Amino acid sequence: MPIDAFARQHCSVARPLSVLGERWTFLVLRELFLGRRRFDEIQSDLGVATNVLSARLSTLVDEGIVERRAYSKRPERFEYRLTEKGIDLQPIILDLMRWSDEHMPVPGGPIHELTHLDCGHKFHPVQSCSHCGGEVHARNIKRRFGRGATKQQRESEKRVLAERRAKRAAATH
Amino acid sequence: MPIDAFARQHCSVARPLSVLGERWTFLVLRELFLGRRRFDEIQSDLGVATNVLSARLSTLVDEGIVERRAYSKRPERFEYRLTEKGIDLQPIILDLMRWSDEHMPVPGGPIHELTHLDCGHKFHPVQSCSHCGGEVHARNIKRRFGRGATKQQRESEKRVLAERRAKRAAATH
Repeated sequence: MPIDAFARQHCSVARPLSVLGERWTFLVLRELFLGRRRFDEIQSDLGVATNVLSARLSTLVDEGIVERRAYSKRPERFEYRLTEKGIDLQPIILDLMRWSDEHMPVPGGPIHELTHLDCGHKFHPVQSCSHCGGEVHARNIKRRFGRGATKQQRESEKRVLAERRAKRAAATH
Repeated sequence: MPIDAFARQHCSVARPLSVLGERWTFLVLRELFLGRRRFDEIQSDLGVATNVLSARLSTLVDEGIVERRAYSKRPERFEYRLTEKGIDLQPIILDLMRWSDEHMPVPGGPIHELTHLDCGHKFHPVQSCSHCGGEVHARNIKRRFGRGATKQQRESEKRVLAERRAKRAAATH
């Protein structure tokens, strides 16, 4: 399946991947989060081919994740900045860094250190609940299909749950 | 650059992408988080070619993200389950879903609904500080290279900051 077909899937993991899943895209976003804004700056830091970088930036601009803004008129020069939609990707970037520090560490310690300006302390990101503020982890959440799910998705879920129950019942007999 | 070269980069965004950045990998992880475990179950749900699914699962097993476990001896049958390392990817998956619901919504409402079992309420994930528990967003954190960063990374950062300061100074004159 070509990657743009991911966008047509009725799935909130597949849809963002239609934009973010291209090779290099996350590294371009990393550069923008690191504060780099100019094409040549990003290009030399990544060592990516200019045509690939152009293509990735164009997609990000088309999707409203990045804005191309003139910062000089003569000579005409542009810089790239994250929009609000782009800035909203920060949790994903920080989670990737956290997972990497934990599970694919480099010698010497973490590559990046984060400080929470509100409390002044170094921190790592924790995922929490928008209702009570308590920590969210794999064993204290329940997921169900919501209003936007298709009939097919609900039915497939029911089937998986029924099979699981049947297997559990067979195992206890 | 081939994707395995990402692993050799001294970067906590590039390194996980060497494993997670292959097309389909996140969708395979989605399936496992949705509770699917059997090859044919995942394959038919994704509509992915069996050789591609085999390759993605092998990589995930080699990386210790997924475990292949026999659930029947005669006939011999295997299922795939997330390891702790795999389960630790949950924040990234939930963040992707959240971003998608907000910025690439489908008609009707969110596809998935999450309930936080500790408080019993529906929620969306919020990123918070491991020290004070307060919310983390793009404008209340500071990032600096840490102990694991290379000399080159620190120097490149200094250069970007110096250029930024010079530009700001020029703009105010």
